Amino acid sequence: MATKIVVLGGSFGGLTTAFEIKRNLTRDVEITVVSDLESFVFIPSLPWIAMGWRKPQDITLPLKEVLEPKGINFIHDEAKGVDADSSKVVTSSKELYYDYLVIATGPALVFSAVQGLGPIEGYTECIFTLEQALRCNEAWNRFLEDPGPVVVGSVQGVSCFGPPYEYVFEIDSELRKRRLRHKVPITFVTSEPYVGHFGMGGLANSRRIMEDTFSEREIRVISNMAIEEFTPDEVRLKDGTKLPYKLAMFAPPMAGVQAVAHLGNPKGFIPVDEHYRHKDYKNIFSVGVAVAMAPPEQTPVPTGLPKTGYMTVKMAKQAAKAIVADITGKNPPEAIQLDAVCLMDMGKTAALMKADPVLPPRQEAILKEGIHYKWLKAAFERYFLWKIKRGLTQLP
Amino acid sequence: MATKIVVLGGSFGGLTTAFEIKRNLTRDVEITVVSDLESFVFIPSLPWIAMGWRKPQDITLPLKEVLEPKGINFIHDEAKGVDADSSKVVTSSKELYYDYLVIATGPALVFSAVQGLGPIEGYTECIFTLEQALRCNEAWNRFLEDPGPVVVGSVQGVSCFGPPYEYVFEIDSELRKRRLRHKVPITFVTSEPYVGHFGMGGLANSRRIMEDTFSEREIRVISNMAIEEFTPDEVRLKDGTKLPYKLAMFAPPMAGVQAVAHLGNPKGFIPVDEHYRHKDYKNIFSVGVAVAMAPPEQTPVPTGLPKTGYMTVKMAKQAAKAIVADITGKNPPEAIQLDAVCLMDMGKTAALMKADPVLPPRQEAILKEGIHYKWLKAAFERYFLWKIKRGLTQLP
Amino acid sequence: MATKIVVLGGSFGGLTTAFEIKRNLTRDVEITVVSDLESFVFIPSLPWIAMGWRKPQDITLPLKEVLEPKGINFIHDEAKGVDADSSKVVTSSKELYYDYLVIATGPALVFSAVQGLGPIEGYTECIFTLEQALRCNEAWNRFLEDPGPVVVGSVQGVSCFGPPYEYVFEIDSELRKRRLRHKVPITFVTSEPYVGHFGMGGLANSRRIMEDTFSEREIRVISNMAIEEFTPDEVRLKDGTKLPYKLAMFAPPMAGVQAVAHLGNPKGFIPVDEHYRHKDYKNIFSVGVAVAMAPPEQTPVPTGLPKTGYMTVKMAKQAAKAIVADITGKNPPEAIQLDAVCLMDMGKTAALMKADPVLPPRQEAILKEGIHYKWLKAAFERYFLWKIKRGLTQLP
Repeated sequence: MATKIVVLGGSFGGLTTAFEIKRNLTRDVEITVVSDLESFVFIPSLPWIAMGWRKPQDITLPLKEVLEPKGINFIHDEAKGVDADSSKVVTSSKELYYDYLVIATGPALVFSAVQGLGPIEGYTECIFTLEQALRCNEAWNRFLEDPGPVVVGSVQGVSCFGPPYEYVFEIDSELRKRRLRHKVPITFVTSEPYVGHFGMGGLANSRRIMEDTFSEREIRVISNMAIEEFTPDEVRLKDGTKLPYKLAMFAPPMAGVQAVAHLGNPKGFIPVDEHYRHKDYKNIFSVGVAVAMAPPEQTPVPTGLPKTGYMTVKMAKQAAKAIVADITGKNPPEAIQLDAVCLMDMGKTAALMKADPVLPPRQEAILKEGIHYKWLKAAFERYFLWKIKRGLTQLP
Repeated sequence: MATKIVVLGGSFGGLTTAFEIKRNLTRDVEITVVSDLESFVFIPSLPWIAMGWRKPQDITLPLKEVLEPKGINFIHDEAKGVDADSSKVVTSSKELYYDYLVIATGPALVFSAVQGLGPIEGYTECIFTLEQALRCNEAWNRFLEDPGPVVVGSVQGVSCFGPPYEYVFEIDSELRKRRLRHKVPITFVTSEPYVGHFGMGGLANSRRIMEDTFSEREIRVISNMAIEEFTPDEVRLKDGTKLPYKLAMFAPPMAGVQAVAHLGNPKGFIPVDEHYRHKDYKNIFSVGVAVAMAPPEQTPVPTGLPKTGYMTVKMAKQAAKAIVADITGKNPPEAIQLDAVCLMDMGKTAALMKADPVLPPRQEAILKEGIHYKWLKAAFERYFLWKIKRGLTQLP
Repeated sequence: MATKIVVLGGSFGGLTTAFEIKRNLTRDVEITVVSDLESFVFIPSLPWIAMGWRKPQDITLPLKEVLEPKGINFIHDEAKGVDADSSKVVTSSKELYYDYLVIATGPALVFSAVQGLGPIEGYTECIFTLEQALRCNEAWNRFLEDPGPVVVGSVQGVSCFGPPYEYVFEIDSELRKRRLRHKVPITFVTSEPYVGHFGMGGLANSRRIMEDTFSEREIRVISNMAIEEFTPDEVRLKDGTKLPYKLAMFAPPMAGVQAVAHLGNPKGFIPVDEHYRHKDYKNIFSVGVAVAMAPPEQTPVPTGLPKTGYMTVKMAKQAAKAIVADITGKNPPEAIQLDAVCLMDMGKTAALMKADPVLPPRQEAILKEGIHYKWLKAAFERYFLWKIKRGLTQLP
């Protein structure tokens, strides 16, 4: 009988794991990807959706069309729960038994962390899902009719710091291009102890470069700061400062998603070993943002460690190798130390970041700004989508 | 009967306004420029007079020779007062009735702000008038015979911060050229919260660049500081520090000049609308340093907003347009937002500064250092004087 | 009868003085160099010995072979004392009467300054002598087998700050080359108020450049700090912080050597006039690290002024001129102001430092990093050793 593998999630982690297992396993296997989204979304381009520089069709691919030609099942449904003891996933419409489960759900966004945070529950925009990014783009278009103060940033407990940086540099560039910048005081508020910390203790000279960049662009920085609450027109900081805004975009903290949270730590993130195998359930694996990872240092205002798409892909390949080894009775692969490469958009320019390994001390740590990284970022978006369409997962 | 226009002041503001009205008004008009100075002085070159790099004849033009060929009257006399209700200017020798009055007097220098400040009342040099700059040059020549500590800076309440920066970099360069720098500890004391603030909340990465420049040149910086008093050989700071000196050059605060102070705010600066028209007297206009402008932020030690020659010329053109429109019964010109471009001498090099608009948030903010800006500064001096001689006022 | 000159020390100061007197004195003179070392050691290359990049024979020259062809006596013995009143040096085996004595002993290393400091008395490596550097290289080779945290720095009271900078940058570079850097957290602890102070109040933009360099290389910096004690596996700081280590290299404070300490200040350094002549004993001269020199400023944690090889050579020439003038009854040479040029190794790169004069205010102050300075440093090592071999002392 075929080995049944259920993969929760159809993004970087889920697709990479599914493709890799399929590609490397000659035995009979039945892989089913479950996602509440109909399409794969190239998440790194969501800030460009928010800016109106991309349309949804530019950065999405229907999961059915991607998976089925590869012989992988796709169920467009929401996972409601996992019964790990009887190896069963429950969706809103059915029950799926598995031999192996891969949790690649990504995060739940915790907008309840701060009063007034978020586009539904509160007053601030977000760019972590396609829906949010489209909504943020509508807010942006309204804002351009009648500009005013902008506040962008990351609240206490955030781990994914990159998108607010990208977004604030993008709106600065776009406003200059539109000759509107002088009507828009921009403030960047972050829980990081300093700009360029990124939840990972800084990266090479990231602090100096980010401080200089914010100075040059005359974006006011308030770091090491928690938010008291958001009102419909003010960001109220813990120190009593009130920042009026016409547009506010804030990253929320993340947690494990509801359906699998009971398998994780208090925040719902899944504890795994070096093969991304669940520490208690030997037939459950987890990759990407769903995985529990400790930050490199305690910061005065709490922050977490970012998990990028690049890291997720690396984890997924490692998990796929371990699953294939397990099925075929081979030794598990050698443990790897995660590194991270990231292209951060900065509006009219971009930056290459490399951290190898992710956490210090590092063999290599690079942060470089340049216009060519902007071209590289745009090129990589096309390249990655082309690869996903064909079920290819290798990084170049 | 001809419309009578009296212009108080024969510098950037007065000349530009007079030329612009004359050039654009086809109707009968009688323009009279009143100045207590016989000559136009290219004020930006005064630091070079102090260094001995320019002679007075290099940077001055007799106002009579400049104005009369253009059909503009010139009265070399001091304005003693203005009777705004009867539209009358009183000079030391006559009374002048006007239909329109333009106040382009520049500032009064408030040496009384600090005990011992100033070349007449106190012990410090100044470079804000030709007379002061010549005196400062004499002090410099004496100093070179027997060098010692130098202190340069801006006291509390200063708004025109540029000249002390230029002067301190110039003497640093000149002393190195003369192989005397090692005999001269140089200290820069300023009321700005940090170097590169310039009374305008900084400009792009001006703080970093200025901090680096002072470090590289090993000029000690004491910022965010007020002066208690100057003695003949010590600068006494508010925090008790005593800095001995052989040469001290300090910028004083500015106020409105005596003759028009009663038309202005408590400091004697003239409140104007967006057409540089007096808020109460509709036939009085004011341009340049005489105008009341609010600083962008409160600083711990009080500072004011600088008004540069470039800004004055822009104001003068706007005022001239408004006066011409008023006389001809047309609509006043559209309001403009002031920008500022400035070339700051740095001795062996120079810096280009651009702030558009002057106050943040800005569409464009640039601070760049380079040897070519030094050449540009020298070239612009020649170009501007050549234009004034011909009654031309357009910026390139 | 020949004038008897005894020179204590066979390094930069002793050799330069001996060669210079011999070369410039036509009269009969008998010069004797006394050293407890058999060979001249090119001290600037000791960090490279510690790294294994040089062998002892690469950077040493037998003193006998260097001195005797020039007609200078060499006694390989340790000076035990000096009887200044009867102009006599006592070594472990004989007594030497002199007409002129030159104290060019270099320093004694005060490992007792901190509990647990030093390779013999304590647990930390040092690179100030050939023996220490070789021992440090052994420790390094053991460390590479089983890497862990590294702590490098300068304890309170240090004056020679350069070598720890060189060493920490060298091990960073070497570890990256060996792909081991991610296993080694590196911390730099110094008594300087900030990195780039160097015991001389900084040099141009040295603070900014050093801060940036440590950031880029992700070496943690703890400045303005004193050490409580070293244990076999921990550096305990005065503020209570405990830094575990597998390898620790720390510079110790310096004092005058035992044999001449009674002729010096409380620390044993020799007080001299502008001709490097002892302030009390007119036939005793001193050059190099043995000389008492006041630091430019008091620092919160005590530091001293570094005396480099370049400075020592300058002093030695000045002293030699004064001795020759004294013997020949001529006027002493004009006093010079010491400058310093230094090439600091930074591992994969190097920096040129120039301070003219050594202490501020300076005519010239330069700190520049570049790969070509690395080449220059290696070339200069060869050039200098070639010159010493031939008894040449001129700087290029």
